[in-house]
Amino acid sequence: MNLLERMKDIRPLCQQSMAEAEKRWDNLAKPLKSLGTLESDIIQIAGICRAAEVCMERPLVVVFCADNGVVKQGVTQVDSHVTAIVAENITHGDSTVCVMGRQIGAKIWPVDIGIQGDLHVPGILQYKVRHGTRDMTEEPTLTREEVLRALEVGIELAERAKAEGFSILVTGEMGIGNTTTSSAVAAVLLHETVETVTGRGAGLSDEGLRRKVAAIHRAIVLHRPNADDPIDVLAKVGGLDIAGMAGLYLGGALAGIPVVMDGFISAVAALIAIRLAPLCRDYILPSHVSAEPAGQLLLQALDFSPRISCGMRLGEGTGGVAAVALLQMGTAVYHSMRDFESAGVDRYTPQS
Amino acid sequence: MNLLERMKDIRPLCQQSMAEAEKRWDNLAKPLKSLGTLESDIIQIAGICRAAEVCMERPLVVVFCADNGVVKQGVTQVDSHVTAIVAENITHGDSTVCVMGRQIGAKIWPVDIGIQGDLHVPGILQYKVRHGTRDMTEEPTLTREEVLRALEVGIELAERAKAEGFSILVTGEMGIGNTTTSSAVAAVLLHETVETVTGRGAGLSDEGLRRKVAAIHRAIVLHRPNADDPIDVLAKVGGLDIAGMAGLYLGGALAGIPVVMDGFISAVAALIAIRLAPLCRDYILPSHVSAEPAGQLLLQALDFSPRISCGMRLGEGTGGVAAVALLQMGTAVYHSMRDFESAGVDRYTPQS
Repeated sequence: MNLLERMKDIRPLCQQSMAEAEKRWDNLAKPLKSLGTLESDIIQIAGICRAAEVCMERPLVVVFCADNGVVKQGVTQVDSHVTAIVAENITHGDSTVCVMGRQIGAKIWPVDIGIQGDLHVPGILQYKVRHGTRDMTEEPTLTREEVLRALEVGIELAERAKAEGFSILVTGEMGIGNTTTSSAVAAVLLHETVETVTGRGAGLSDEGLRRKVAAIHRAIVLHRPNADDPIDVLAKVGGLDIAGMAGLYLGGALAGIPVVMDGFISAVAALIAIRLAPLCRDYILPSHVSAEPAGQLLLQALDFSPRISCGMRLGEGTGGVAAVALLQMGTAVYHSMRDFESAGVDRYTPQS
Repeated sequence: MNLLERMKDIRPLCQQSMAEAEKRWDNLAKPLKSLGTLESDIIQIAGICRAAEVCMERPLVVVFCADNGVVKQGVTQVDSHVTAIVAENITHGDSTVCVMGRQIGAKIWPVDIGIQGDLHVPGILQYKVRHGTRDMTEEPTLTREEVLRALEVGIELAERAKAEGFSILVTGEMGIGNTTTSSAVAAVLLHETVETVTGRGAGLSDEGLRRKVAAIHRAIVLHRPNADDPIDVLAKVGGLDIAGMAGLYLGGALAGIPVVMDGFISAVAALIAIRLAPLCRDYILPSHVSAEPAGQLLLQALDFSPRISCGMRLGEGTGGVAAVALLQMGTAVYHSMRDFESAGVDRYTPQS
């Protein structure tokens, strides 16, 4: 079936489960609504899972690993080969997201959706669409078919995660050069200047930042991506990690599993997914605001408020994992806190 | 010794431990500084503990429980007797902060620093200064001596916690009417109008909010607290929980143990502590921004940026506990992440 046709299968959230979850919160022996978004996020998750019995015990971070042809323009600090090294480190539990993920009992899936070389190590999920993208300053990064294939990979992974019993997903990525592609996509989709949405990524020098802005400029002028066609934007200046993550959001919405959005690159992917299927937004939970300059702008465009503002800009899904830690705390209260009656406390309801 | 004299014993943070901690962060195989405040907070904690070996495994939440005479003016939803009920529930592990605290391995100390009645249950730490404060609309809430005694209680508890091997403290409170005292203190210290800094607390009606604002107004006009004398402000419109928390910050600074600041009421107490002993600020870590209207204003006055923005307004130390969860994640990376050499990755340092 046509991928975009399938988007019609995304259902609105289950209002009954949300009403049940809200009622349960309101009965707990504490001031009404006093846990803020911890309460509203868990209500949303009840709506996503179509059950008030929310579970947050089996989180999964899907780390889409891919290389970007534009790296040869000197827009990054380190070379493309680092993508494969970090992807392999993830299989050994050795990257930052692995260490943070262990604190919340998360499993991490490193996915080769477009690493330059071939990485034959156990633990890497093989979903390669192509060996890195083309250099956007010379030609479109991907074909339309490659973008669609990468979206399908994301959908497939969400469905696989659901089938394997994971309760909540986090979008992650690892790909040298992926803040360049993300800034390019953001500039087009948000109708912003390249300078406004482009930052130093992993820590670029002034000179490197100038090269990065110039490369994005050249690519946009050369290919004129159509802002009204997210597939076209991805095909001209996007990356396979962004497309894979966009697919994960769509797949989460189709499968009924919540997807926590990480930072800058994840937000760009969320914007793509929501433009392809607006209902998909209800299945996404925000986490933190990235320190990249476009972080706040993207959250505004998505109408999400960040839960965490720690100035993080690491990627891999680390901000999403941090947010899941807070959601797990909220879920603990939701499940094990006493209600007013058993706590012997008067109900806190507005007095007249 | 005079309590305020003792403040001269607060030392500046240990620069050598901070430099060591920063160096360790910079050697980890990830983009430089990419965990933002998780890194800088842990560096600060190294400076506080005077050792780069930071430990976050034994957090303690000190919940100061106290009643407020102003409650009889109809400024709250529920009656003063709820303070004792919730304090007792804490001893059974049944309040919100207990449930959230279990997620991070925290111990909770409920402290009776001024509950109206007498609460003879095991697990309550008995440090009562008086049976609730006086009604600020009629007379000053406390004597100067009572304020000093409450500050000493906080200092003593920080020292006791340090001696018992806790690694990080969180300020918590439980006291019906304590957003009224906090708004009164904030209005005076920040030179703001009462309306600006007064909110609905646990969920007050419009009519209740009007009574609350009017009561604070009356008290300030009646007693004219001296904004340049924090003890005077506490004695005229403050509460014993606020004074106890201010003491905990001072004690943390004296004993060399980090204190995580919770929300609105904790921030008011932090402002008191810092005005009494400016160096004490370096020993405090911010957590979240309260949904109370003065939450953001107080953070600005303290020059702290919130790590968490979940719209929480529950108190008890819940926002602080949430922040400790993030710090524990950061500490896990700090302790167990590989460095560049062993990860086989080029160092991410700015290229020329």
